[in-house]
Amino acid sequence: MFMTPIYPTDAYPFSRAELIEKLKAKLSPHRFQHVLGVEQAALELAERYGANPVQASIAGLCHDYAKEIGDDDYRKVIMTQQFDLDLLNWNNNVWHGYVGPYFIETELGLHDPAILQAVHSHTMGRPKMSTLEQIIFVADYIEPGRDFPEVVRAREVAKSDLSDAVMLEVTNTIDYLVTRKIPIYPDLILTFNDWAKK
Amino acid sequence: MFMTPIYPTDAYPFSRAELIEKLKAKLSPHRFQHVLGVEQAALELAERYGANPVQASIAGLCHDYAKEIGDDDYRKVIMTQQFDLDLLNWNNNVWHGYVGPYFIETELGLHDPAILQAVHSHTMGRPKMSTLEQIIFVADYIEPGRDFPEVVRAREVAKSDLSDAVMLEVTNTIDYLVTRKIPIYPDLILTFNDWAKK
Repeated sequence: MFMTPIYPTDAYPFSRAELIEKLKAKLSPHRFQHVLGVEQAALELAERYGANPVQASIAGLCHDYAKEIGDDDYRKVIMTQQFDLDLLNWNNNVWHGYVGPYFIETELGLHDPAILQAVHSHTMGRPKMSTLEQIIFVADYIEPGRDFPEVVRAREVAKSDLSDAVMLEVTNTIDYLVTRKIPIYPDLILTFNDWAKK
Repeated sequence: MFMTPIYPTDAYPFSRAELIEKLKAKLSPHRFQHVLGVEQAALELAERYGANPVQASIAGLCHDYAKEIGDDDYRKVIMTQQFDLDLLNWNNNVWHGYVGPYFIETELGLHDPAILQAVHSHTMGRPKMSTLEQIIFVADYIEPGRDFPEVVRAREVAKSDLSDAVMLEVTNTIDYLVTRKIPIYPDLILTFNDWAKK
């Protein structure tokens, strides 16, 4: 296990132990294990690529904070809180990233914009992601609990080039969706196009 | 060879023979052969799926009318003729469909909106394509001169279900672009998403 950082009390409304308790209460056991795994992967990537370990820890732990919120609650927030109403045409897979920061701010009192942005983009990415955003995007894909054929290669790439790991994940995800004829949220293509131009 | 239709002189500004001459003068020999092939494939599909053979013939022959126009000419038209300026971030592969109808209208005097729409959408498709649009989209992919591994299957599918043939082409195209890390024009994803929801 990677050493977990101590959160500065002047900057964050909770200690790591307090955040862990909140997540344990909010998430199913399976998802709770997943976010611990993403935190670990994010801390490793933060050390390797020079990101703030506190932000990596909190963003890793919080990235799926809103994943188990019900569809009706999402729809209510989207309709009343100035979100793009096109989101109503999508589903939890999009919402937990795009609307997740709203729940994190209102329920946890966390307002660090770098962390909220990393939660926002952790599923679809976006052009010009920060290092922290790329770390959470990739950590979610390669955390120790993940077990799918492409994960071995993804973990290897993540050790040598963070940007390449982002692109590998984006292309694998598009392949997955196209093969299964699952609609693709267009922002994922904007991420792909930005990386393709590099 | 499928019988080619006679164009009604009151509806179109040229006979088929006159249009053929204009295309022969405008296009390289290789592309001229291609558009003849697309016309043939489009006529077959029009008979099978109940579309107007004159429109299928003209749209098949004209779909690549603007393919060999130079980039500077495209840029000038995009900037001066009220096109979406985001097109300037793309290339001939997008332009020859989206800007092609402008050249067809101004240079050939052809104004049939169903044909112009089929030219517009022949590369990226669009949600809710007409039968004629789907025919040109698919005919461009399966015409007799095409020779790539997936074309055999695409020709089979086109004989049994036009909509399935569209989706096969869309998914193959996305696969092709993703594999080669070539930016994807977002409208292709809107087409995919619309078909995926069926």
